[in-house]
Amino acid sequence: MASPLKLGLAGLGTVGASVARILAGKREHFSDTIGRAVVLTAVSARDRNRDRGVDVSAAAWFDDPVKLAAEGDIDIYVELIGGSDGPALDSVRAALNRGIPVVTANKALLAHHGVQLAKLAQRKNTTILFEAAVAGGIPIIKTMREALRGNGVSRVYGILNGTCNYMLTRMEREGIAFADVLAEAQGLGYAEADPTFDIGGFDAAHKLAILTSLAFGCEIDLDAIYIEGISQITLEDIRAASELGFRIKLLAVAQRTDTGIEQRVHPTMIPANAALARVDGVVNAVAVDTDLLGSILLAGPGAGGAATASAVLSDILDVAAGTSVPTLGIAPQQLAPYRRARMRAHEGGYYIRLQVADEVGAFAAIARRMAENQISLESIVQRRREDEDGGVQPVILITHETTEAAVRKALDAVQRDGHLRGDPRMIRIEKLA
Amino acid sequence: MASPLKLGLAGLGTVGASVARILAGKREHFSDTIGRAVVLTAVSARDRNRDRGVDVSAAAWFDDPVKLAAEGDIDIYVELIGGSDGPALDSVRAALNRGIPVVTANKALLAHHGVQLAKLAQRKNTTILFEAAVAGGIPIIKTMREALRGNGVSRVYGILNGTCNYMLTRMEREGIAFADVLAEAQGLGYAEADPTFDIGGFDAAHKLAILTSLAFGCEIDLDAIYIEGISQITLEDIRAASELGFRIKLLAVAQRTDTGIEQRVHPTMIPANAALARVDGVVNAVAVDTDLLGSILLAGPGAGGAATASAVLSDILDVAAGTSVPTLGIAPQQLAPYRRARMRAHEGGYYIRLQVADEVGAFAAIARRMAENQISLESIVQRRREDEDGGVQPVILITHETTEAAVRKALDAVQRDGHLRGDPRMIRIEKLA
Repeated sequence: MASPLKLGLAGLGTVGASVARILAGKREHFSDTIGRAVVLTAVSARDRNRDRGVDVSAAAWFDDPVKLAAEGDIDIYVELIGGSDGPALDSVRAALNRGIPVVTANKALLAHHGVQLAKLAQRKNTTILFEAAVAGGIPIIKTMREALRGNGVSRVYGILNGTCNYMLTRMEREGIAFADVLAEAQGLGYAEADPTFDIGGFDAAHKLAILTSLAFGCEIDLDAIYIEGISQITLEDIRAASELGFRIKLLAVAQRTDTGIEQRVHPTMIPANAALARVDGVVNAVAVDTDLLGSILLAGPGAGGAATASAVLSDILDVAAGTSVPTLGIAPQQLAPYRRARMRAHEGGYYIRLQVADEVGAFAAIARRMAENQISLESIVQRRREDEDGGVQPVILITHETTEAAVRKALDAVQRDGHLRGDPRMIRIEKLA
Repeated sequence: MASPLKLGLAGLGTVGASVARILAGKREHFSDTIGRAVVLTAVSARDRNRDRGVDVSAAAWFDDPVKLAAEGDIDIYVELIGGSDGPALDSVRAALNRGIPVVTANKALLAHHGVQLAKLAQRKNTTILFEAAVAGGIPIIKTMREALRGNGVSRVYGILNGTCNYMLTRMEREGIAFADVLAEAQGLGYAEADPTFDIGGFDAAHKLAILTSLAFGCEIDLDAIYIEGISQITLEDIRAASELGFRIKLLAVAQRTDTGIEQRVHPTMIPANAALARVDGVVNAVAVDTDLLGSILLAGPGAGGAATASAVLSDILDVAAGTSVPTLGIAPQQLAPYRRARMRAHEGGYYIRLQVADEVGAFAAIARRMAENQISLESIVQRRREDEDGGVQPVILITHETTEAAVRKALDAVQRDGHLRGDPRMIRIEKLA
């Protein structure tokens, strides 16, 4: 049997402690599987004395993860500290500088510094594995980096934030309003005290930035992502979606277009009979449209200690097996610059919800504004609700394929015409295979 | 750049010709991606002169694939001949004997000789890759062999035969009877002139045999699989399933139980709101239940030249990148013997459809037989259809969890009681996560 693989682990939070526990509990399973023992030789965390359900005292303790990465007796460095900068970044750099491969679950680190770190890894003839950084335990990174290698990708999209998906599922199933579902999700630990990162779409955007690079062989550009969260979604939208044969999901989408690559995170209407529409609760799912393979879908738990630890372990075992795949799938100097497609050029169908004043000519004015912008309508739903203000009618429009620019222009004009009460709402419709 | 990878390709049918065309068309894409050119240096097929839309004249021609594998100037042997024995088996052995890695799409070869070939590969310090053998382009082999390496698997199951799934989908959506859908599928090329291999469940069983070995680290045992095809499924069953909140799919399931590992292929009722229930048409899907990761689902095209070629190419590129994963995930001497769980010990819910004679006491007799066998009923649907023979009533029972043995015993007794017209029908219900 080959010499043991010496592991340095920084960060003993939910995922880190789970990795340590599984390594201890499945010691023989691992050495049998890969023909090589995996031994925790160095650890670093904030509090040395906290009980984490696993004894790590046999490993050398480092107060400073950067020192662990730079000086520890390790063959592989596992970064589970989190954060795009600070000790996470410094320690990863320190490990790579020694030519030591890195395994990380840190999406922010990669979304911000992925290309630079990939270059450093290449110079030092090593690599970074990060299966756990996107969609928890779902092997989407391995799939895109290895299994789809021969394919050209036209679109990658998915449900990348379990908190949002849980909340939208609850709103739809139980008819609970956004604010109440948020409070519930916070109580269950599915949402943070400050939920902005999740419900604002930023978490999904970090993950999308990484997937975009793998899909299109381009540099990572987090700042170019159009981001819209779910906090404006109402029960009215969800009910209307359901009646029209759709479901609302927070989708992250990267798509090749004539003018560049679109990257967007926003609430999306998808057909209720699509497999993705059945991905409920805290589950994540990613779909990839390709030239050879057609479309594939991967779904599974997007978070949780054991699921994320599973992805970390699979990366560790890949390193033990001698993997040599470049960090971002291809050599970093071959990454194309990211060419942004403007959101206004986005083409698709739209769901539009208006609160229209009950006045003569209001509806005709709206129809005229749509026509002026070459927007043709697939359906119009107008219904008076019992509990609605007598002078206002909710009107829902579903457009045929049009552009974001046309929709925005039409809605601006409708609003200027003065027939609306409140702001118009718009949700993009995604065509699925 | 490293030296080119020299490829020997045997079999230029749909998949083989597709592989050759893609290799030619994406030459630069591949060499950029892996830093190494992939060159077709030797080919073998039945007819040298057939036009396959690709010029393979630069490669050495072999009439005999075994000679190609044994003597060709190749670094890798791609077997796309098909068949469990004959030239496929002989040529794969010849390549392995030279220490040359093999890529194959041949499920029958692996289901029959997988363990023996894995041992040969190991002795010769090489490996066999076979992503294309199961579920076409879906990367389920890579996922099970690499991404789930740290996990213990409790169940793997899926829709592994696109022909059956297409037919069941058409029956459900269009209300077309089995025989007519079969004729249609044959016309479209989805079903063979002799459809037994597909609709009898044998194709799915071959694939399941391979997945079982990867899931449980055990030897392959095709003969131990309980197999039941879809030819007995009626529109009546499909309608009843739909009314009861289920859909009928041909599932292949391997599951760890107290008495061993169950392997079974049969029509299955699954909840209509499960993601798997939305996998329609010729699409395949595989789900894996694990200890760490929970459950993941992969779905995509299960057949077709380009999709299958994509899987072959991904294996070729893995070889080019120096993959060293053992054929069946672990060293063959570590594979446990397959321990069979008897089908009669299978536990689950059951859908039972009976044609009951319209006689006093018939229903009471049926209920008594169920109770005698400790079968409790979740629902009973009895409805008189207009077009039904006046003296017969269709009765549908859904049982709570029970055993296969109990259901068979109860149905035998019911039939002996003489109240039935025709044979009872039974479809197993699968619990999904």
